[in-house]
Amino acid sequence: MNTNIALEQFYSWQAKLSAYNHAMSLIYYDGATVAPKGTAQNRARALSVLSEETYKLSTSEDTLSLLSYLDEHRGELGEKDARAVYLALKDIKEMKKIPMDEYIAYQELMVEADDVWHRAKEESNFELFRPVLEKIFETQKRFANYCAPEKHPYNYCLDKYEEGLTMDECDKFFSALKEKIIPLINKISAAKQVDDSCIKGSFSELEQEKFSYELMKIMGIDLDHCGLGTTEHPFTTSIGSHHDVRITTNYDPSNLSSSMFSVIHEGGHALYDMNSADDLAYTLLDGGVSMGIHESQSRFYENLLGRSREFVGYVFPKAQGCFPEQLKDYTADDFYKAINLVTPSLIRTEADEVTYCLHVMVRYELEKRVMSGELEVKDLPLEWNRLYKEYLGVDVPDDKRGVLQDSHWSGGGIGYFPSYALGSAYGAHLLHKMKETVDVEKCLSEGNFAPINEWNREHIWKFGCLKGSSALLRDALGEEFDPSYYTDYLEKKYSAIYGL
Amino acid sequence: MNTNIALEQFYSWQAKLSAYNHAMSLIYYDGATVAPKGTAQNRARALSVLSEETYKLSTSEDTLSLLSYLDEHRGELGEKDARAVYLALKDIKEMKKIPMDEYIAYQELMVEADDVWHRAKEESNFELFRPVLEKIFETQKRFANYCAPEKHPYNYCLDKYEEGLTMDECDKFFSALKEKIIPLINKISAAKQVDDSCIKGSFSELEQEKFSYELMKIMGIDLDHCGLGTTEHPFTTSIGSHHDVRITTNYDPSNLSSSMFSVIHEGGHALYDMNSADDLAYTLLDGGVSMGIHESQSRFYENLLGRSREFVGYVFPKAQGCFPEQLKDYTADDFYKAINLVTPSLIRTEADEVTYCLHVMVRYELEKRVMSGELEVKDLPLEWNRLYKEYLGVDVPDDKRGVLQDSHWSGGGIGYFPSYALGSAYGAHLLHKMKETVDVEKCLSEGNFAPINEWNREHIWKFGCLKGSSALLRDALGEEFDPSYYTDYLEKKYSAIYGL
Repeated sequence: MNTNIALEQFYSWQAKLSAYNHAMSLIYYDGATVAPKGTAQNRARALSVLSEETYKLSTSEDTLSLLSYLDEHRGELGEKDARAVYLALKDIKEMKKIPMDEYIAYQELMVEADDVWHRAKEESNFELFRPVLEKIFETQKRFANYCAPEKHPYNYCLDKYEEGLTMDECDKFFSALKEKIIPLINKISAAKQVDDSCIKGSFSELEQEKFSYELMKIMGIDLDHCGLGTTEHPFTTSIGSHHDVRITTNYDPSNLSSSMFSVIHEGGHALYDMNSADDLAYTLLDGGVSMGIHESQSRFYENLLGRSREFVGYVFPKAQGCFPEQLKDYTADDFYKAINLVTPSLIRTEADEVTYCLHVMVRYELEKRVMSGELEVKDLPLEWNRLYKEYLGVDVPDDKRGVLQDSHWSGGGIGYFPSYALGSAYGAHLLHKMKETVDVEKCLSEGNFAPINEWNREHIWKFGCLKGSSALLRDALGEEFDPSYYTDYLEKKYSAIYGL
Repeated sequence: MNTNIALEQFYSWQAKLSAYNHAMSLIYYDGATVAPKGTAQNRARALSVLSEETYKLSTSEDTLSLLSYLDEHRGELGEKDARAVYLALKDIKEMKKIPMDEYIAYQELMVEADDVWHRAKEESNFELFRPVLEKIFETQKRFANYCAPEKHPYNYCLDKYEEGLTMDECDKFFSALKEKIIPLINKISAAKQVDDSCIKGSFSELEQEKFSYELMKIMGIDLDHCGLGTTEHPFTTSIGSHHDVRITTNYDPSNLSSSMFSVIHEGGHALYDMNSADDLAYTLLDGGVSMGIHESQSRFYENLLGRSREFVGYVFPKAQGCFPEQLKDYTADDFYKAINLVTPSLIRTEADEVTYCLHVMVRYELEKRVMSGELEVKDLPLEWNRLYKEYLGVDVPDDKRGVLQDSHWSGGGIGYFPSYALGSAYGAHLLHKMKETVDVEKCLSEGNFAPINEWNREHIWKFGCLKGSSALLRDALGEEFDPSYYTDYLEKKYSAIYGL
């Protein structure tokens, strides 16, 4: 063995993993979009085999000795190879701590959970979901104990979505937000509510789809490498590499803004995923580095850009082009106000920018307490409803619009939610930094995303997973992350809209 | 090792192959339907890895010794397991004769060929396709020589699509057809042409899609396990097992019958694939046994049932329901005549029942001569055009509507075409047999496919690959196959339509 031969084997191993990921992502995407609805069991069988093969490929003795060899010779490796070896070893060492049968059983549990959660949500029946959710939390605790017995199990979960994130940091971050956001919400509640009638009405799915493609083009998304599908819950996924990315949306025929901002949000994820440097394709460094950074991009496009007055000025005439009858009596100003209406509500994905983080905080509190053993899964609905009343002042009428609304827990995504709030705040700080060199307002008012995308490409996207998320963020910002840019942004924007 | 343990390993090996097939079929289906158009290279990388893994899994020493063990103990196996072991060993012994690098190179050639053929067809440029097609024919000759050096290389090709089929049999079969069909065509040409204006006009894609789903339901296709997609060339594929099947069609906005009969044709394939006995799923015995039997089902539904006067009587009012304006001045009789218009033409997939087999014969003659070394690939266009003039009396204006029209050669499907003609003839004999116990006319006039499907399920579908195609056909027919049922059917049906 010499380093060149080892590197060649390492590349071929990564290519193989990419191919398995290609297959599994596509099976998932197909299941969520066009697959006939009775085929879930058939998919589960294929996924079970493929995830077992992936597990074996990842944890085999051959792989481990190859990676150890490369690790011992890391002085001879370039930056990229060294980082990929480091990440691979980190993952594998963790994976090997989980017994294979438990790993496979967990993959199968995920398929079952997705199915059960869908039915439970449809029936608004938490009891149906409870046994599966209990298993998920138990497994996560057990895995946390296998992999990082020295850590609090919830810190182990948080770290999976944002490297190094802890409950202490989250607590600090969320209280900084609360301190500013709660008074802002109180002031808005006392002010005169804005009118959002212009986004309500009847908007055909076909026209909304055409408008979605137009939005993707405006955002600078390369449609030769990014598809658009329809699903119940919008998401973004890469198929095998950054050369093939798919976003999905859901069309509400009575509300124009729902799919519009889903598309811009998922489009932000897609831009990040699609713009890894080309030589990262088919390696472990391809695609976004963490969910926090990912959400910083998606919520950046959705809110900081998409819901800005400048962008509305540019895009409203295009919306009128697609929906001339529905929008003929409205102005860009009406549209701007309608899409920025603030109101405490039940559903996180439909929440406005100001109340959004409170939805996240509810989930964070609950996950933390279950993972700490302070709360039982069976008590989640009651606690959910209590916290919604406390944080948002709303009464939850049923579990469908309460504890069953999100797909994250059924997908094992415990510890994911804080990245939405973090990402929103990262985005505001990044925008502040971007404005030092890019005339963002001018770009938006002209629908010219190229300079904005170029800044993101150079500072965030092209690195893929080459840098860890903290280093990436610090380098892009030129300083430590500071959430006050976010709260300042919210205060300024919404004071103007509501005349506070 | 004992037989039970060996059988368990054999099942898990088959399940693994099914999972790889699931992935590869889905990647292919996705590429043909919704994948963004710049992603072919990305797909090729994944397919290359997965086909290499499949090759290794199929031909490993472990596999071979497992199968040999089971083969030695075949007296202890049930019928199904014994047949699966026999088929697996047959395939693997053949596969092992092909060097792995040549096998992989051929898979890669297929991806390239598909891309090149699409472009060549678009540009009507045979020279662009020629080098790739030469490689395909060369490889097929080389593989034939590796696998069956005792056979004529074209017999090796024919056998892949219809077990045991030879040039001698094809020659005999085709001359039996020609003897009856050519005089029939001559009589039809001399008769008064029927009017097909009722299927021409403007038919929206969306309405055609709705009508397609209605047709699938009428045919008794379980939409929970069968999807419908849109592609340039209609096809049917199973995804991993008979529990998930997809058909595709192509909508011609100016012609109603084009997608209608594509859907019924592919629906016939789908019914066959979907109705393997449940215990065959995830084994080598799942799905159709040969292309000849497959086409006997697809062309059975498309022509013998779909284009019958009885079915038209039932379905025409449904078509009027979808296209009230376009069809309001026509009767079921008009429709029946329009969809059965006979005219020598350029494109096989659009050919009528009577001239169809002549299109197949042209391809058969050309393949046979290239595989025999009597014709060079570079001379194919000239010979194609000469034979179209000789057999069908038409002048081929360009290669797009000539030698480049079909996707089979670019997909390596040399030897496939005869199964279309054979299948058509099998179908007519099967229909004759079915009528002994099923009142087919009555079923069709009531849109009641259940008794027809039940007969096919019991005599054809449920066996999957449990019987070889000749045995399956003989058992279903209760006698040797006889092509005169087919020529009799054509003579009777078209003499009535054309008043001969």
